[in-house]
Amino acid sequence: MALNFTLDQQDLATQARAGRLTTRHGEVSTPAFMPVGTQAAVKTLTPDELSAAGADILLANTYHLFLRPGVETVRALGGLHRFMGWPRAILTDSGGFQVLSLAKLRKVTDEGVEFRSHLDGSRHLLTPEDAIRVQDGLDTDIAMSFDEPVEMPADPAVVRKAADRTVRWAERGLVERDRLRAEGRGAMALFGINQGGVDPGERARCFERIGTMPFDGFALGGLWVGEERALSLDMVEHDCGLFPVQQPRYLMGVGHPVDLLDAVARGVDMFDCVLPTRNARRGTVFISTGRLVVKNSGYARDQRPLDPACDCYTCRNFTRAYVRHLFASGELLGMRLASIHAVHQMIGLAREARQAVLDRRFAAFRTTFIERFRSGETLARPEDDPIPAPTRKGPTDDVE
Amino acid sequence: MALNFTLDQQDLATQARAGRLTTRHGEVSTPAFMPVGTQAAVKTLTPDELSAAGADILLANTYHLFLRPGVETVRALGGLHRFMGWPRAILTDSGGFQVLSLAKLRKVTDEGVEFRSHLDGSRHLLTPEDAIRVQDGLDTDIAMSFDEPVEMPADPAVVRKAADRTVRWAERGLVERDRLRAEGRGAMALFGINQGGVDPGERARCFERIGTMPFDGFALGGLWVGEERALSLDMVEHDCGLFPVQQPRYLMGVGHPVDLLDAVARGVDMFDCVLPTRNARRGTVFISTGRLVVKNSGYARDQRPLDPACDCYTCRNFTRAYVRHLFASGELLGMRLASIHAVHQMIGLAREARQAVLDRRFAAFRTTFIERFRSGETLARPEDDPIPAPTRKGPTDDVE
Repeated sequence: MALNFTLDQQDLATQARAGRLTTRHGEVSTPAFMPVGTQAAVKTLTPDELSAAGADILLANTYHLFLRPGVETVRALGGLHRFMGWPRAILTDSGGFQVLSLAKLRKVTDEGVEFRSHLDGSRHLLTPEDAIRVQDGLDTDIAMSFDEPVEMPADPAVVRKAADRTVRWAERGLVERDRLRAEGRGAMALFGINQGGVDPGERARCFERIGTMPFDGFALGGLWVGEERALSLDMVEHDCGLFPVQQPRYLMGVGHPVDLLDAVARGVDMFDCVLPTRNARRGTVFISTGRLVVKNSGYARDQRPLDPACDCYTCRNFTRAYVRHLFASGELLGMRLASIHAVHQMIGLAREARQAVLDRRFAAFRTTFIERFRSGETLARPEDDPIPAPTRKGPTDDVE
Repeated sequence: MALNFTLDQQDLATQARAGRLTTRHGEVSTPAFMPVGTQAAVKTLTPDELSAAGADILLANTYHLFLRPGVETVRALGGLHRFMGWPRAILTDSGGFQVLSLAKLRKVTDEGVEFRSHLDGSRHLLTPEDAIRVQDGLDTDIAMSFDEPVEMPADPAVVRKAADRTVRWAERGLVERDRLRAEGRGAMALFGINQGGVDPGERARCFERIGTMPFDGFALGGLWVGEERALSLDMVEHDCGLFPVQQPRYLMGVGHPVDLLDAVARGVDMFDCVLPTRNARRGTVFISTGRLVVKNSGYARDQRPLDPACDCYTCRNFTRAYVRHLFASGELLGMRLASIHAVHQMIGLAREARQAVLDRRFAAFRTTFIERFRSGETLARPEDDPIPAPTRKGPTDDVE
C-alpha cells in the first residue's frame, strides 16, 4: 500500500478532521501545510530549518524539475529525497498547472500538452503518462494526476471540455501507474484532481467519474485562481461533501491562514502555497495578529520579535528592527529569517488546528484565531501607541 | 583591561604563534579568521551557523553601520551584539578604508574625511575622534584606529604623507578613547594600524611612532591591495619583526588559505576577508584540494560533497550536483550552502594552524596543506577520471 490514511478524529460542530498519512517516507499529520520546494529547494531554507518548523511533507514542482535538472539526473542521484537532502515525505504536482502558467506556446490536445520551456525555449510534449513516469522517476511519495486547469473566468463549455479531458487523463495516468507497477516501479501514491470551475453541477459531474477511480486521495482543483473567496469556500464545501470520508483531501494553492482554517472547517486535510514564503521574501509575514510589513521604516527601532507569540528561530533571536534593517540593506538573511517564520507559522497553524480537532474545540479555536488575526494588535509601530485600528486589506487581497 | 592576549605557544621553525584573546564577549583563539559581517550580517548566514563553523569573532564595518542603520539606532537597540544576535566578540574596522573605496566626493584633510554616502549622497565628516565614538556607540569589543589608506601604486611622497597623517590620527583616537573612558564609556580595546605601503623603511618609520602608543594590538595596513604577493609577504615579515611579541597582530583583508598560512608563518594572529564568502555566493569555494567552481556544469551529477574532507553542514548533507543545481536554478540556498562551507573552511584552517603550532608541527602542517591545496585532487569532474592536471590560477588571482 503506497499510502495509508487514518482518521483520528472528526469534529462534530464542523467538518474538520484530524488524520495521519503514512507514506514511504514517514508519517504526515493532517491538517498539513506543505511548504513548496519548486526547484527542489524551499526558497532560502535548508531541510534542517524545515524540520525545525515541523514540516513532515514538502511539495516539489514536476514541471520545474522535468526541465532542470531533468528527471534522469534526479534519478541518477538517488531520487528527489536524496538529491535535496529531505528524508521525509514529498508530494509532487503533475506539472499541468505550471505548463499552462509558465511555458510558452503551449498547445493542449487530447494527447497531452506541447510546450516550449520558459528557460530555453526547448520543445517538449507532456502526456498524462509522461507526468506519471516523471513523478515516479523523481521517486515522489504522492504523485498528482495530470489535469487541465482552466483560466478563469471561462465559458461553461471550456470548463466542461477541460473537466472531461481531466477525467480521461486521470484514467490514463492510473493505467500508466499499473504498467509501472507491473515493472516493479510506481510505488508512489496517486491523487486524482477534481475540476469543474465554480459550477457545483460541473464539479459533481466530474467527480462522478474521478471518484470511482482507485486514487489514494483527491484534490480540489481550479480554485483560488481569482474567483470570489465565498464562492471558493462553497466549492470546497460542495466537493468535500462528495469526496469519500476515508481518503485524504488536498486543496491546492491555498496558503492564507484564514483560508486554511475555513477550508479545514469544510473537511480539507492538506494545503500548499507559495504565498507565505513569497511574501516573506518581500518583507511581509503573517503573524498571529495579522499581516506585518516588517520592511516598513516604522519598525526601524521596534525591539519586539516579528510575532511575540511565536517560538520560531527568528522570533526567539531577532527583533523587527534587525529584520527590517536586513531588508533595508538588501541582505539575503532578511529573506531567510522572514521565511523561517513564515513556514513555521503556517505549519504551526495546521498543527494547532489538528490539536484543536483532537481536543474537540476546533470551532472555538478557529473563531479565536480569526478574531485575533483580524485584530491587528502588535502590528502598530512603537511610536504609534496607543494602538490605532490599522488599515489593512482583507485576508485574501495579498494572495498572489 | 579591555583585552588580554595570552601567547600559548611560539613555533620554533617559523614565526607562527598560538594565542588567546580575552574580550568582553568571550575568548578568541588565534590564529583566527574573522568572517565579515559588513552590514551587521555575514551575508546569507545566521549567528547559529557562524557558531557551528567555529567562529568566536566577527568583523563589522563601521562605515556601513554608520550610514545604515546609524549608530544611534544600534545603540538604542542595545549595541551591535544584541542587534545582530551575536553574543561573541566583534571587531569593527575604523571606516577609513570603506570611506576611501566606496564613498563619493571624498576629501581628506588633517581634520578627517569629508564624503558623500554611496547610498543617498548625504554629506558627512568622519574624524579620527568620530571613528572612535562611532565604534564605541556600536559597542564593539575591538576598535580600529582611523587611518588613511593609500591607493597603490602611489608616489613615495603620497605614501609618506598618509603614514604621517595615520600617526597623528592614531594619537587623536587614543586621546578620544581616554576622554570616553573618563565618562565611563570606551571600554573597547583599540588597535593601531601601521602604514607605509611596500617600503620597509617607510613602514618602520611609521611604526617607530605607532608602536610607542598604548594600543591593545597592531594591524598591518595597506597590504594585499594589488601589489605582488611576494612583496606583501616581505612586508608582513618585516612588520611582525617590529611589532611587540606580547600583543596581537592583525593582517587586514587577507583570506586566501595559502596567504593565511604564509602570514601565520610570519607571525600574524588575526585575519579577515570577504573573499571566501563572496566567491561562495558566486559559486566557487576553496576546498582542501584547491578551488572548486561548483557552479560548472561538469559537476551536474557529481555525488561527492564540495569537499570530501570537510565536516561542515553542507558537506555532510549535500552533493556538488545539488549545490550546482541550486546555482544553475538561481536558488539562494546555493549561496547559503556554499557560504556555510566557505566560512567553516577558513575558520577551520586557522584552528588547525593553531593546533599545529601547539603540537609543534606547524611547518609540516603548512607544507602538507599547501601541497594538497595545489594538487587539484577531487576537483576533477567524475567523467574526467583519471584526474588530469587541472588548469588553475595562482593562489591570489582570485582575490577580489
